[in-house]
Amino acid sequence: MLVNGVPGNLISIRDRGLLYGDGVFRTLCVINGHAEHWPLHYQKLQHDCNALGIHCPDFAGLTAQLDSLLVDHANAVYKIIVTRGLATRGYAPAPDAVSTHIWDIFPLPEYPKSWLKQGVSLRLCELRLSVQPRLSGIKHLNRMENVLAAAECNDVAEGLLLDVGGWVIEGTRSNVFLVSAGRLITPDLSRCGVAGVQRDRVIAYARKIGMSVEVRDVALAELLAADEIFLTNSVFGLWSVATFEQRDWTDFSCAIQIRTGLEDE
Amino acid sequence: MLVNGVPGNLISIRDRGLLYGDGVFRTLCVINGHAEHWPLHYQKLQHDCNALGIHCPDFAGLTAQLDSLLVDHANAVYKIIVTRGLATRGYAPAPDAVSTHIWDIFPLPEYPKSWLKQGVSLRLCELRLSVQPRLSGIKHLNRMENVLAAAECNDVAEGLLLDVGGWVIEGTRSNVFLVSAGRLITPDLSRCGVAGVQRDRVIAYARKIGMSVEVRDVALAELLAADEIFLTNSVFGLWSVATFEQRDWTDFSCAIQIRTGLEDE
Repeated sequence: MLVNGVPGNLISIRDRGLLYGDGVFRTLCVINGHAEHWPLHYQKLQHDCNALGIHCPDFAGLTAQLDSLLVDHANAVYKIIVTRGLATRGYAPAPDAVSTHIWDIFPLPEYPKSWLKQGVSLRLCELRLSVQPRLSGIKHLNRMENVLAAAECNDVAEGLLLDVGGWVIEGTRSNVFLVSAGRLITPDLSRCGVAGVQRDRVIAYARKIGMSVEVRDVALAELLAADEIFLTNSVFGLWSVATFEQRDWTDFSCAIQIRTGLEDE
Repeated sequence: MLVNGVPGNLISIRDRGLLYGDGVFRTLCVINGHAEHWPLHYQKLQHDCNALGIHCPDFAGLTAQLDSLLVDHANAVYKIIVTRGLATRGYAPAPDAVSTHIWDIFPLPEYPKSWLKQGVSLRLCELRLSVQPRLSGIKHLNRMENVLAAAECNDVAEGLLLDVGGWVIEGTRSNVFLVSAGRLITPDLSRCGVAGVQRDRVIAYARKIGMSVEVRDVALAELLAADEIFLTNSVFGLWSVATFEQRDWTDFSCAIQIRTGLEDE
């Protein structure tokens, strides 16, 4: 673990990341000493920092830190957090705040092998995501809604979140896609939700192979009527949904095509 | 500063308070070695912990810690933070999580003396608060909206926040009251907002002296038509609003009556 480039696992109790959740993060997989899609993760990290006016450490510096960790942790989940740094006084951010950046490392999770082949169970969460256009898409540290939602669906692979308007948005830790009559559809995240790196990769790959991709509002009824549903994140990659709200799916062909294609890239 | 009862100013980078903003806090004033309204603050802290399923340290233990700090910091702002504790894996909280509790101490802020006598300027924030009934009223650590709002009104005493539906909710760090035809009115906080200790005290005191108090939705037009507007929090106490949206107020008699009454309690 590195805190501002120095080995350690502690931060100040005055860090605004703790006090206000005033920061952003990204989670990526390291496999055989290779940090998967690190440039894309950095791009998102930088975008999110800029959106909040947080100083983002430069790419070369963060990459050097990452490289220094790969040797001893060649197969792991890496998390990079950038906070606005130490508090001065009150909520208002100081314009010259020096951000804090943290690398943390976790074991690769071991999911049931069947989930990849036979798909997963998805449950509709009771919690509805609030709508905040100023924060939508950003992977910030204000994640209480995810905590409450995840607590609802600890016994299934993933929970599905709607927003307060009833629109389909995302999973508690994943993005959601549906396939309908050969088109790929994923919810618009301009009101709430987190735009993952894997979501971008799926959209880009589908377009590359000539699929029609729509990013727009998705109603629950449309999701339930889909030919396929699948979930994406940077750690588990892509899971087809086998059961959701009394419906079963067995044809995962589009998801398999995209997953295979992404693995070969 | 105390972290889990031990002098220190560092916490783990794996604390869920940092990772997800998964915790709650309270801010109180210590004047001449006396922690103002500590039992009320503890009651709120406990309520908020319970609402989120976070283990709240017991009153006797926290009070002993507080007392140990009063000697050396007899005039200061104290902050107590309780987080869900160390992360195990993912968003879902472990049912047996041991919470982290932190005492931090800040200098008493020095506000312009005129603000107390002549009232303050209030500005309408552009940011609209999102609606999340599961978190409303709770003083949790997901405070990005307050950060963004405070950044808008750094040059005035306080910013006023409406929710996405356009209803008046609160200030960036205060609760708001209006006086209209002798009645005291404060926004309902069941959709969003933080219910402060000082807000409770004002409501209780007003009722005690026979004022009619209404806790309900407040439209911006109603606020602008009010006889008086005032703001409350546990650090500055009570400020009358002198200017807001091209309107001026000079009669602060109800606010003065309540402030004086609360000081004498």
